[in-house]
Amino acid sequence: MAPSADAETFPLHLSAHHVHGYSSKSVVNASVLHGKLDLRLETRTIEEPPAGELQIQIKSTGICGSDVSYYKKFANGDLCACAPLSLGHESSGVVVGIGPLVNGFKIGDRVALEVGIPCGQCTICRKGRYNLCKKMRFRSSAKSVPHFQGTLQERINHPAIWCHKIPDHISFDAAALLEPLSVAIHSLNRALPAPGSTALVIGAGTVGLLVAAMARQSGCTFVTIMDVDQGRVEYAISKGFATHGYVVPKPLHSSSSSSSIFTDGTSTPASDGIMTPISSYSSVNDRLDGAKALAADVLAVARPDMVELEEDEDDGVDVTFECTGKEACMQTSLYATKPGGKVIMVGMGTPIQTVPLSAAHLREVDILGIFRYANTYQTGIRILGGKGAMKIPSLDDMVTHKFKGLGNAKEAFDLAGRTVDDNGKLVLKVVIEA
Amino acid sequence: MAPSADAETFPLHLSAHHVHGYSSKSVVNASVLHGKLDLRLETRTIEEPPAGELQIQIKSTGICGSDVSYYKKFANGDLCACAPLSLGHESSGVVVGIGPLVNGFKIGDRVALEVGIPCGQCTICRKGRYNLCKKMRFRSSAKSVPHFQGTLQERINHPAIWCHKIPDHISFDAAALLEPLSVAIHSLNRALPAPGSTALVIGAGTVGLLVAAMARQSGCTFVTIMDVDQGRVEYAISKGFATHGYVVPKPLHSSSSSSSIFTDGTSTPASDGIMTPISSYSSVNDRLDGAKALAADVLAVARPDMVELEEDEDDGVDVTFECTGKEACMQTSLYATKPGGKVIMVGMGTPIQTVPLSAAHLREVDILGIFRYANTYQTGIRILGGKGAMKIPSLDDMVTHKFKGLGNAKEAFDLAGRTVDDNGKLVLKVVIEA
Amino acid sequence: MAPSADAETFPLHLSAHHVHGYSSKSVVNASVLHGKLDLRLETRTIEEPPAGELQIQIKSTGICGSDVSYYKKFANGDLCACAPLSLGHESSGVVVGIGPLVNGFKIGDRVALEVGIPCGQCTICRKGRYNLCKKMRFRSSAKSVPHFQGTLQERINHPAIWCHKIPDHISFDAAALLEPLSVAIHSLNRALPAPGSTALVIGAGTVGLLVAAMARQSGCTFVTIMDVDQGRVEYAISKGFATHGYVVPKPLHSSSSSSSIFTDGTSTPASDGIMTPISSYSSVNDRLDGAKALAADVLAVARPDMVELEEDEDDGVDVTFECTGKEACMQTSLYATKPGGKVIMVGMGTPIQTVPLSAAHLREVDILGIFRYANTYQTGIRILGGKGAMKIPSLDDMVTHKFKGLGNAKEAFDLAGRTVDDNGKLVLKVVIEA
Amino acid sequence: MAPSADAETFPLHLSAHHVHGYSSKSVVNASVLHGKLDLRLETRTIEEPPAGELQIQIKSTGICGSDVSYYKKFANGDLCACAPLSLGHESSGVVVGIGPLVNGFKIGDRVALEVGIPCGQCTICRKGRYNLCKKMRFRSSAKSVPHFQGTLQERINHPAIWCHKIPDHISFDAAALLEPLSVAIHSLNRALPAPGSTALVIGAGTVGLLVAAMARQSGCTFVTIMDVDQGRVEYAISKGFATHGYVVPKPLHSSSSSSSIFTDGTSTPASDGIMTPISSYSSVNDRLDGAKALAADVLAVARPDMVELEEDEDDGVDVTFECTGKEACMQTSLYATKPGGKVIMVGMGTPIQTVPLSAAHLREVDILGIFRYANTYQTGIRILGGKGAMKIPSLDDMVTHKFKGLGNAKEAFDLAGRTVDDNGKLVLKVVIEA
Repeated sequence: MAPSADAETFPLHLSAHHVHGYSSKSVVNASVLHGKLDLRLETRTIEEPPAGELQIQIKSTGICGSDVSYYKKFANGDLCACAPLSLGHESSGVVVGIGPLVNGFKIGDRVALEVGIPCGQCTICRKGRYNLCKKMRFRSSAKSVPHFQGTLQERINHPAIWCHKIPDHISFDAAALLEPLSVAIHSLNRALPAPGSTALVIGAGTVGLLVAAMARQSGCTFVTIMDVDQGRVEYAISKGFATHGYVVPKPLHSSSSSSSIFTDGTSTPASDGIMTPISSYSSVNDRLDGAKALAADVLAVARPDMVELEEDEDDGVDVTFECTGKEACMQTSLYATKPGGKVIMVGMGTPIQTVPLSAAHLREVDILGIFRYANTYQTGIRILGGKGAMKIPSLDDMVTHKFKGLGNAKEAFDLAGRTVDDNGKLVLKVVIEA
Repeated sequence: MAPSADAETFPLHLSAHHVHGYSSKSVVNASVLHGKLDLRLETRTIEEPPAGELQIQIKSTGICGSDVSYYKKFANGDLCACAPLSLGHESSGVVVGIGPLVNGFKIGDRVALEVGIPCGQCTICRKGRYNLCKKMRFRSSAKSVPHFQGTLQERINHPAIWCHKIPDHISFDAAALLEPLSVAIHSLNRALPAPGSTALVIGAGTVGLLVAAMARQSGCTFVTIMDVDQGRVEYAISKGFATHGYVVPKPLHSSSSSSSIFTDGTSTPASDGIMTPISSYSSVNDRLDGAKALAADVLAVARPDMVELEEDEDDGVDVTFECTGKEACMQTSLYATKPGGKVIMVGMGTPIQTVPLSAAHLREVDILGIFRYANTYQTGIRILGGKGAMKIPSLDDMVTHKFKGLGNAKEAFDLAGRTVDDNGKLVLKVVIEA
Repeated sequence: MAPSADAETFPLHLSAHHVHGYSSKSVVNASVLHGKLDLRLETRTIEEPPAGELQIQIKSTGICGSDVSYYKKFANGDLCACAPLSLGHESSGVVVGIGPLVNGFKIGDRVALEVGIPCGQCTICRKGRYNLCKKMRFRSSAKSVPHFQGTLQERINHPAIWCHKIPDHISFDAAALLEPLSVAIHSLNRALPAPGSTALVIGAGTVGLLVAAMARQSGCTFVTIMDVDQGRVEYAISKGFATHGYVVPKPLHSSSSSSSIFTDGTSTPASDGIMTPISSYSSVNDRLDGAKALAADVLAVARPDMVELEEDEDDGVDVTFECTGKEACMQTSLYATKPGGKVIMVGMGTPIQTVPLSAAHLREVDILGIFRYANTYQTGIRILGGKGAMKIPSLDDMVTHKFKGLGNAKEAFDLAGRTVDDNGKLVLKVVIEA
Repeated sequence: MAPSADAETFPLHLSAHHVHGYSSKSVVNASVLHGKLDLRLETRTIEEPPAGELQIQIKSTGICGSDVSYYKKFANGDLCACAPLSLGHESSGVVVGIGPLVNGFKIGDRVALEVGIPCGQCTICRKGRYNLCKKMRFRSSAKSVPHFQGTLQERINHPAIWCHKIPDHISFDAAALLEPLSVAIHSLNRALPAPGSTALVIGAGTVGLLVAAMARQSGCTFVTIMDVDQGRVEYAISKGFATHGYVVPKPLHSSSSSSSIFTDGTSTPASDGIMTPISSYSSVNDRLDGAKALAADVLAVARPDMVELEEDEDDGVDVTFECTGKEACMQTSLYATKPGGKVIMVGMGTPIQTVPLSAAHLREVDILGIFRYANTYQTGIRILGGKGAMKIPSLDDMVTHKFKGLGNAKEAFDLAGRTVDDNGKLVLKVVIEA
């Protein structure tokens, strides 16, 4: 008998709804934000993992600038939460349940979570740029309704293909930081600098530091990082994230509450503010002159040893990674990049900016944006690991503060919104461990 | 109450097995190959389309060189069929059933079928190069076991996301030919010639013709096509597939049974053989000298009007598309391409070849292979269609012979293996209509 | 005896100063601008062509928007002329003299002139992006001092390697238009659209039209052109430059004197103004809302036949070519381009712009600038020519008005600054023939 | 008065012949090869540097495999010397004379020499790929006639733009090795691996080692190097060139005189032979089976810690750099590279090879050749230098043997042809110092 015609067609790329039928539920703790500063520890029920999913016991979650924004304002940029929301999207955990149709995992596997779930079916998903999927649901973001809940829960169910196994030598904290590292990897995948390139990184928060580290790892010979915060610049140099550092002098920026909010998907502490124009700047042209002067200044300071050898040294760097989202920094980026170079927009911030586009146009400086990441976790795991691997600076070392238990989330959020703790110690990455 | 944690996780990218439970079956006719030349018209049962799938009434299926190979040898290259196999993978049809969880389709929609189903979950699928998925199941190919049955059936169930809606002005025959057109589109996506490039296409079978048409469509100003068959070359020029033609002179190829088999996924009639070395060639060097002379010859003949204007004109074309899979043609390709150019391996053929690699190495001629296609159907539909679109030559016109009904499949296969019919008319594409 | 060591080293890439010693001079007519609207016909002496140069009798020069700007203001954007300046940089002519060390030319050869002379020695020249050379000297521009004189002269000496031989079937007028065509070619070389892409071109002046034609030639299936001027849009469609057209409705732009000045190196009539915000727009956000609405409008109108077939159709086009240099058009470009697409900045205009950068950033729309061109003339000559070549619409047809003799230059400039002539006929390209 | 028309046109890109007129000559020593093993120390006269050139006192020249080939056979591959030839093309020196029209240099400047002089005028030169210039003249190669003499001379005149200033911290020996490093840089510029890629380097001679180092520098996380010579593999690992090593087991290669000759432009000792098929391999298929097994073997050994984590780990590396030029190694490269990956042909060797092209074709493994280098010296100088730069292993350390004075050239060449010296010490790079 001939084979039956339909037995061989697999419903791959199945669309959304899943198969129910599991009856066993259990109760877990969850940190849930109900409004501005209204963070509560609650219990939720969780079912057995459905088809294609794993149940993950969360071990570590890093706090991102967007988390802090939701915590403070119940909103992140234009996105307003409209229902209770668990925060957290930089996460790792352990497999404690395995749903039907899942292969390749066993109880106890340690995993990093990729928390954005694309549809997997649209044109752009099929082309591999799934970070741009319009149907993307991203944990801890208020964008999709009902909100896709974050990882500050005891356990969650998560699609197996978005759980990435990690080797033993990568800690849960480092695995959680694979999320911001992914932003950095994606930035380099887009920038794709030729070997021996020069790079400038503006902003030395978590993402800026990781972008700098990835730029070095990816062949940029000179990586200059700049920030208004001297402590961060010193940290970047002393830990090997960058080769050169530049502290933006005070008159160029206000010391006041310039907060840089990285919205969903990227992750940076909330305060790598740079160069908010002081009031004495009376016009756009004045501000642009300031940006131009700053660009010249950072180029001159950063590489005094090379200027005399290369005729075009004063023309700028090959790639600038703008990691603050601020208008003044974008202006500086355009001036600081050499003809034929690239400006990578990493940090999300001011949506509408007044910029000297002709500095990009007439010098053919490409402007490329970074929205989250795609196809980066495997790369991140490789980079963190294994015998003989080309290493980047320790992610564990970037975790400056840890809090145990979801019950301490409020304290963690309060600290994550600051640049130094009560002891004057640098605050880089605050992590909540289960 | 806080939201339940799992209600929001979708089992996207679900793995293979699907949800049964549909009871209504029906009986359809199917053309099934049981061994060499043993093609039978049989009945099969077909169930209702499962979740994520459509039931498609097949309207047109083009016969590809690989189909002819299975028909003649019950094998295609190294792939031997081990069970009854319906052939056909260039197909179009009408939606007659809609499974659960399918959106965006209605009964009566006209569709072209993309018949290779990748896993959608592995690294390379997520990166968008799903044609390279190791778990790919391709209709009418003997590669996966149990074999994934071809489209020479009355109706099949097929995943909705691999069914592409076509507008009314595209015929079912033309829609079926979107499959070989996809190979051509993928070839151009990989070659990505700069505007104004020159191209050489070796082999004027279905795929060669479509590659030539796509090269013109994609900005190649001069497209020269060469083949041993004068009728095909003339067809290519008169119909506007290429701008220049070259018929390989007889002494350079044997007139005997040189069959070029395009294996699964590409599609070409079985006989665009070129330049099988005649016995008087006594060594590799002689054969290479022949290839070099042929390359010089085709370059000189093709563009006599430009040679005097461009100093590097005699250095070769910017891109050569090798569409025969023959060693001698690959050798010619390497010699006919200019320094810094590209050779695109389109035609599958001799797996192990002796080639002048130094001609590529020392002149930095990139060698890129084409395996089927990915993300091409939407492009193909655009190119075939719509008011004002930049058109390629008519695909309907390429269908030189039509057979009505699966019962005439044997006759169709017999003809598809030939280059001219009993009336001496060119055989390009044979189609079986329902 | 061993060979002498230095006899074999060639002083290639010799730097600037050349060898004098030619005594024979002659007198030529030249059109020279001495100040605003102060255009004079004068005589100059010209020496025999020095080493490496040809003497060219100018046959045709097209007038570009930047020429008109100098004529009206003795300045172009920020560049102010500081000495008498011959205008003209879109030119062709005949070889009438051959300097020492020149190979490959003979008296009577017809040539198109590439009038920007890079240093040929710096890093960026050696990398092939010579349009970005800091030492570039460009005829008719006031940038370098002493100014590099334009082609509105009877004869000029020009480096042989920047003279491109043209075949007989290309007229001198068409050869002159190879200059703006080069801008279009360079735009496509940078955009490098995948076959079957959709494109939007904003601005239907000379450059916009040529960009549209090149987009079609390079594989864009649907090319929509938009402009405020209905005549130009109709011209674009009727002549086959674009597949779809859109006339910006009146309320969206002021009818007043919005002049779009293309600075040196690009070429467009001076008035493809679009959407200069009318006074009722009270804020940036209003203007952005207008740009967003316009983007939606043009997308909806342009391709009504495809929207139902492609799920992501409403997301925008693959590539937008912004050819006006206006802020409102740049804003529209960012909104009209789909995620993962590209905006190509072609038209030079407002140097500092307020734009919704987040629309590019969060959707990874790349922003690429075009400054003149590099390595385009050979491509242009191929595209215009030869048996069987894939053609673009006639360049000769774009020449709407011709003036004979340098003595009529003033009349030509006056007309070139208008969009219609006294008879209401469209003014596209005004050419001065010798 | 209007400016004179010709005073402003510069004869840039002047063609070959230079301006004579310098009368002062001097006498220098030169090492000149007159035939097989017939190396003589002679005197030559050298004139003052002509326009655009510098006179360089040679300080260090490394001996390359092609030099050794000329020394032994008065030929290199197909290229036969037809006149006395000074060898040497890996060189550095000091500026001792400055010709007219040279800017930016002063007596005493330390420089690395780029010894291939392209025409600077042809299409491919203007596009930036000057290594492919047909008129390239390369020192110490017999290709151009009269031969362009190598650097084993006391002083030479050389175009200033091909002399690259080096900072004080780079030794003359290291500066000489910028030449083979350039091959490695060009290899990575072409491979352009995504961050976190895996690489395999076949052949651990000078070029293979430098390619491995550049792969690490450019973001490849795991770099496995393989060779038949255990000493070299151990050297590669211990010095940090690669992260993993693999010694090809004896039965897979003959121990006899398999010499790998790197022809002009690349540089490797003459003996990184791998896997010359032993006589027991009776057919092509056997040899391919051997290559396939070797590929599997090296993949399994190199990264045991990652296999379990990545599903596609057994599919191969992202990029393979083939640095031996041997057929068996090319076969292994194609099998060892994952679908969608790249094989970079670096090592020049057997011009005609029998290879499993289908392994590249069906898996879309791109094959890219490397011919010397272009635009690499500035990158090399950056990579070697400066405070805080991302470093590669010491080039000085690679110089295992030094000879003082041109009079000892013969001794140097004899040693350079060996893999170990009389003391059993590894021979990597032999340098002749002035």
